[in-house]
Amino acid sequence: QGTRDHAPAQAALRERLLSAVVSCFKRHGAAAIDTPVLELREMLVGKYGEGSKLIYELQDQGGELLALRYDLTVPFARYLAMNKITNMKRYHVAKVYRRDNPATTRGRYREFYQCDFDIAGQFDSMIPDAECLKIIHEILSDLQLGDFIIKVNDRRILNGVFAVCGVPESKFIPACSTVDKLDKMPWEEVRSEMVGERGMSPEAADRIGEYVQLHGGLDLIERLLQDPKLSQNKLAREGLGDMKLLFEYLTLFGITGKISFDLSLARGLDYYTGVIFEAVLLQQDNEHGEEPVGVGSVAGGGRYDGLVGMFDPKGRKVPCVGVSIGIERIFSILEQRLEASGEKLRTTETQVLVATPQKHLLAARLKLISELWDAGIKAEMLYKKDPKLLKQLQYCEDTGIPLAAIVGEQELADGVVKLRDVATRQEVRM
Amino acid sequence: QGTRDHAPAQAALRERLLSAVVSCFKRHGAAAIDTPVLELREMLVGKYGEGSKLIYELQDQGGELLALRYDLTVPFARYLAMNKITNMKRYHVAKVYRRDNPATTRGRYREFYQCDFDIAGQFDSMIPDAECLKIIHEILSDLQLGDFIIKVNDRRILNGVFAVCGVPESKFIPACSTVDKLDKMPWEEVRSEMVGERGMSPEAADRIGEYVQLHGGLDLIERLLQDPKLSQNKLAREGLGDMKLLFEYLTLFGITGKISFDLSLARGLDYYTGVIFEAVLLQQDNEHGEEPVGVGSVAGGGRYDGLVGMFDPKGRKVPCVGVSIGIERIFSILEQRLEASGEKLRTTETQVLVATPQKHLLAARLKLISELWDAGIKAEMLYKKDPKLLKQLQYCEDTGIPLAAIVGEQELADGVVKLRDVATRQEVRM
Repeated sequence: QGTRDHAPAQAALRERLLSAVVSCFKRHGAAAIDTPVLELREMLVGKYGEGSKLIYELQDQGGELLALRYDLTVPFARYLAMNKITNMKRYHVAKVYRRDNPATTRGRYREFYQCDFDIAGQFDSMIPDAECLKIIHEILSDLQLGDFIIKVNDRRILNGVFAVCGVPESKFIPACSTVDKLDKMPWEEVRSEMVGERGMSPEAADRIGEYVQLHGGLDLIERLLQDPKLSQNKLAREGLGDMKLLFEYLTLFGITGKISFDLSLARGLDYYTGVIFEAVLLQQDNEHGEEPVGVGSVAGGGRYDGLVGMFDPKGRKVPCVGVSIGIERIFSILEQRLEASGEKLRTTETQVLVATPQKHLLAARLKLISELWDAGIKAEMLYKKDPKLLKQLQYCEDTGIPLAAIVGEQELADGVVKLRDVATRQEVRM
Repeated sequence: QGTRDHAPAQAALRERLLSAVVSCFKRHGAAAIDTPVLELREMLVGKYGEGSKLIYELQDQGGELLALRYDLTVPFARYLAMNKITNMKRYHVAKVYRRDNPATTRGRYREFYQCDFDIAGQFDSMIPDAECLKIIHEILSDLQLGDFIIKVNDRRILNGVFAVCGVPESKFIPACSTVDKLDKMPWEEVRSEMVGERGMSPEAADRIGEYVQLHGGLDLIERLLQDPKLSQNKLAREGLGDMKLLFEYLTLFGITGKISFDLSLARGLDYYTGVIFEAVLLQQDNEHGEEPVGVGSVAGGGRYDGLVGMFDPKGRKVPCVGVSIGIERIFSILEQRLEASGEKLRTTETQVLVATPQKHLLAARLKLISELWDAGIKAEMLYKKDPKLLKQLQYCEDTGIPLAAIVGEQELADGVVKLRDVATRQEVRM
């Protein structure tokens, strides 16, 4: 349940998609690493907030207690700490596992790929963070998924908002989780969860509401920097200052048109400490002139400066920022689009079929195909002793093989091969 | 335990190795499929003989009882049966899991890659089987791993041997497992296991010993076809007839020089029904003129005509033959070789570092690098506001970046970039 096989057409589409993502990561100078699917259970505990209950655990069959990785970020942090690496730009494309309620039509699975790019190291403020946003922008543009917006916020700004609205620090994380639901439900419902389940005062909730419904650009950052309450909070001031710097860099990258500073963005995971971001695709056919509606998050990430330190025996911190591309949702979109277009994706790369027009020529086919393989040419033949020529040409048409190399008795006698273009039916002897 | 992280240098080496294997599979016209790492536990039970106790099981957290896949062959058979596919040539490169005693220096891990190529379908005898051997030959030659030999046998011949030596049919599988140990221990020990643990008569064991110590080529096949006892057995006759045909095809492929018909080859897995094969590397430095010694299996496979039927509710069979490349052992060899050579593998593909020679030029670097990325050029910059030029050039040398694109105040004023070849220190303004 919640997993799937990939048939050849899907595997080919996925390969195309992953290679577009990986080539972007390589364009930005990242090296690949790989970590096991299995992690020690204790490494994953307490890193994912409410997600922790979705971790797949392995049965105790003797030896270590293991679990399947829940994401690629925690294993990366564990890898950095174990190897005492303080500086690294890496990508990792691999499957992760969550015992979630699957919603496969919307691309939500229990086994799914993540494509992560992360920059670890102590650097000047906001330069790596800006690059992560540039990467999202490049990938979503390359894949031609339609219009999108990248929401940006900062955990320090959110925490500053909570503080100046009178939320005690112990309730910052649950407040964050509640605000995170603003993309799925209206403010009124979020407010009643705050007051009802989270035990905040109605006044605090209303004050929070005034902030978290704001979104904009540089102008909003400037306004909040002047905000009489928020500007008194040290965390918020730091966050807003960095946000201003980030917008400066994004302006140089020429991508602020797709960026929205959005105070409702909170992100579910516990480990974020600074900038957070999330890209959403906007509804395509919008006949009614309404505000564009998000059809779901396709990329996300942020800064997590404390995570590596949780794995280091001496608690040494390595600041990190990274982005994860939500490849399953994008795959669903591309799959539906391909289906709608009626285009047939080739699932093999075979260049030539080795064929014979008469019987008793299996030996000639085997000799020729062996020569072709040894010369690096992608070649197939039918696994029949005496296949009909029509069947052989039909196979080319069915599977998109462009050429047939035909050896008959005459060709054998003349020491030539007849090369046939399957589409045009033109033949040359060579 | 028994798993490992891949650092960038290892990940780069692995990518190179896997891409050599995959391009061979594609050259032979295979399509990719993908199946989940998780399988229903009941699907794996009873498929692996003694290996079954090494299956990783997931904890029962509610819902289905799951296990991690043990190989890629059983999931492939399950996929064919579920989708009622009777004809397919596919490859699959992915990780599998075994709770084995790890021997990591010899490339034996609990999590490891398998690279499988399989041909499913009802075809004329031995044509797909011969292609599997050709594939092993191509891959081991391409990778330049030194001399190797591919041992070939047939489960029908082995069973015929057991039958004519007086072994009851119920003991064929344990007899097979015992014969399989002949590559690791001398005949005397195998014989005493047969008599002691497996309960065979000393006479039967001696008769088996006369057969399973034979190896050779076409001459041996001919001799056994004339063998007064073995030629009376229907299974053995079929197996030997097919073996003769196989050698005919392998002669046309020009690879019989590396093939040995070896009656001691048995293969551990239960599901094989016909031809079986295994490639071993031969010891390189052999000063003493002895017979070359095998340093371990690097590829194996065979025919399994009954496995798909085990997953089909009506028991419909789909004949299959396939090969699995033992990528971990090959990886260990290449890793050791690389280490010995002192060659440093680049872990990134960055073409150019965007650098500045003076302070206060971060904006110029961000603008230029953004242009380069948008033009598809692999580019990096240091994440510092004002890095020293020397540090920037040092970074190029450390990571193998061939070019530096330098923008200083003068270049900015002139509207040019200075492109520096890091190795030769030659510069051009452009």
